Amino acid sequence: MTNTLKSSYQKTSYKLSGNGPRNISVLKEAFQNIDENLESDIYGNGAIIEDFQTKIAKILGKEEAVFFPSGTMAQQIALRIWADRNDNRRMAYHPLSHLEIHEQDGLKELQQINPTLLGTAERLLTIEDIKALQEPVSSVLLELPQREIGGQLPSFEGLEEISQYCKAQGIALHLDGARLWEITPFYEKSAEEICALFDSVYVSFYKGIGAIAGAILAGDADFVQEAKIWKRRYGGDLISLYPYILSADYYFDKRIGKMASYYEAAKKLAERFNACDGVKTVPEVPVSNMFHVRFEKSVDVIGTKLAEIQDEIGVGISGYLQEKAEDVCGFEVSVGDSFIEIPINILEKLFKILEESFE
Amino acid sequence: MTNTLKSSYQKTSYKLSGNGPRNISVLKEAFQNIDENLESDIYGNGAIIEDFQTKIAKILGKEEAVFFPSGTMAQQIALRIWADRNDNRRMAYHPLSHLEIHEQDGLKELQQINPTLLGTAERLLTIEDIKALQEPVSSVLLELPQREIGGQLPSFEGLEEISQYCKAQGIALHLDGARLWEITPFYEKSAEEICALFDSVYVSFYKGIGAIAGAILAGDADFVQEAKIWKRRYGGDLISLYPYILSADYYFDKRIGKMASYYEAAKKLAERFNACDGVKTVPEVPVSNMFHVRFEKSVDVIGTKLAEIQDEIGVGISGYLQEKAEDVCGFEVSVGDSFIEIPINILEKLFKILEESFE
Repeated sequence: MTNTLKSSYQKTSYKLSGNGPRNISVLKEAFQNIDENLESDIYGNGAIIEDFQTKIAKILGKEEAVFFPSGTMAQQIALRIWADRNDNRRMAYHPLSHLEIHEQDGLKELQQINPTLLGTAERLLTIEDIKALQEPVSSVLLELPQREIGGQLPSFEGLEEISQYCKAQGIALHLDGARLWEITPFYEKSAEEICALFDSVYVSFYKGIGAIAGAILAGDADFVQEAKIWKRRYGGDLISLYPYILSADYYFDKRIGKMASYYEAAKKLAERFNACDGVKTVPEVPVSNMFHVRFEKSVDVIGTKLAEIQDEIGVGISGYLQEKAEDVCGFEVSVGDSFIEIPINILEKLFKILEESFE
Repeated sequence: MTNTLKSSYQKTSYKLSGNGPRNISVLKEAFQNIDENLESDIYGNGAIIEDFQTKIAKILGKEEAVFFPSGTMAQQIALRIWADRNDNRRMAYHPLSHLEIHEQDGLKELQQINPTLLGTAERLLTIEDIKALQEPVSSVLLELPQREIGGQLPSFEGLEEISQYCKAQGIALHLDGARLWEITPFYEKSAEEICALFDSVYVSFYKGIGAIAGAILAGDADFVQEAKIWKRRYGGDLISLYPYILSADYYFDKRIGKMASYYEAAKKLAERFNACDGVKTVPEVPVSNMFHVRFEKSVDVIGTKLAEIQDEIGVGISGYLQEKAEDVCGFEVSVGDSFIEIPINILEKLFKILEESFE
């Protein structure tokens, strides 16, 4: 079943999610117009890395920034610095934080930091969850949007309250901004305005931006200087990071202006899914370019149906299905360039067949 | 002074060291003939990463291998696995090991591993140093060649003795093979024959091989499986590592057959330096493509002279000088493609002027 769905997805000409295939063309396009005599960055120094760090720091409204090969590395380091500053290895995040479920417990194993889980898995964490903490924490990590629950967001006022509370309590507030660029249209705020509520910020360049890999960690100058020392300790201070930096810069410029159109498209797409019986999206109205689609049937039943539709219409809906509960399954949608490129008549055909299939 | 030497070095048309400028052409050349539809590796899976790991594992004669963004990450992880297996956070290496002097104490800070320094900084460590250890260690790390002392090597028989002793004592023997490819001509052994003496092996692709960055860690299958978990914890399990993997593979194939010619050239080059008064190389006769050049004068005096020679002849001798003791300074030479490309008449002119300058 899983393989049928995956292979039918791979054969489609169009896709609902993403920015196109993750193949070597992503690198080739980014490097096409780059002078081959341009000097590599060397162990964190040189114009390529320094200029990009300065550029992103400015956009985030932070004093300094440092480029990392991965967000996993960047965020563990941020939390360790706050743990040291507050002399407290306890911190707190959402039960479905990337650090809790996707990093093989790196935070605990490498940094001996003990995270407290705030609230419950199926909803956003709230200021009440933070106020209810039984023991002091050095930091709170907020992921905006909260990816594993479909990409949900608190109100901006709610964010401001959390920020003020943490400041008053001496708790460092760290932003897991893996999808920060993608939420600026919903908040109608700049990245800088959102980041002003946080002491440190991580952003990614391969989700909505669609580059190869890579992350930025930003904050005060002394925070970033300390992060650079940890970057070396982790083995992230590579002699050359330019394959990631130059492509991050290229795709940032190419797609940063498209976030509003991805967001608008995601809202329309979710509406179409919600019009189908037995199908709903989480959140019902997306607040970014992403949402989850849920079906009230088993993986086998839905998988067979989706594969048939993909084969017939040539639009990739999903290459996988995750079982969410008994007879509830789903997948994630992240709107990018690929969705925008689907001809309207093909999209209409897709939704007609979807509506009929799930009656 | 330092800046004069550096800028005179940068202006030269030829260089004694390296494989050419570290610029974007290194990436462009490697990707020139790669099909843009080739699919990226995804979080450690996919043909690009799996095929290269299999290829290098086979060359090293180990069951499995895993590609890492850096050797720093790979080696800390290897030592942690051996520490866990032997339930002992103590290990031992040379006082000038990369882990001791270039990694901001990552091994100690991230893994709480306590290294004991074997022997003294200016010489190779010996089996007697290992036998003299006062407390049991989980592992010994050997760097071949020992870079910070000019790239020195024990005899192969000496290596075999260390290997046998460690095996008998239940001490894991790890190879820091940052320059493993470069020592096969001296030992007249294959990489596999050398690696057979070690339980785990790290090799690099941007020294003699001249790729962009990247490392392989190899060993038994269960060792490598565990290393992959730690790779994720460190934030080294990037969604795409192909910019490094494909270029490592390209330059490996391009240069692996040239190691003997680099070694022969290094020996000749060292001989020429040793013919100059007040100049000597460490080691006197190189055992790989590298050696250190030492001058018995101050950085200022030698720097001025080298800059003048570089300006006049157009061959880059060194872009920096390190003070080794009072009125002793030096630099490192690593022979690669750049040296091979220097026309013989220019090289003769260089050595004539060097001999005259240091009379």
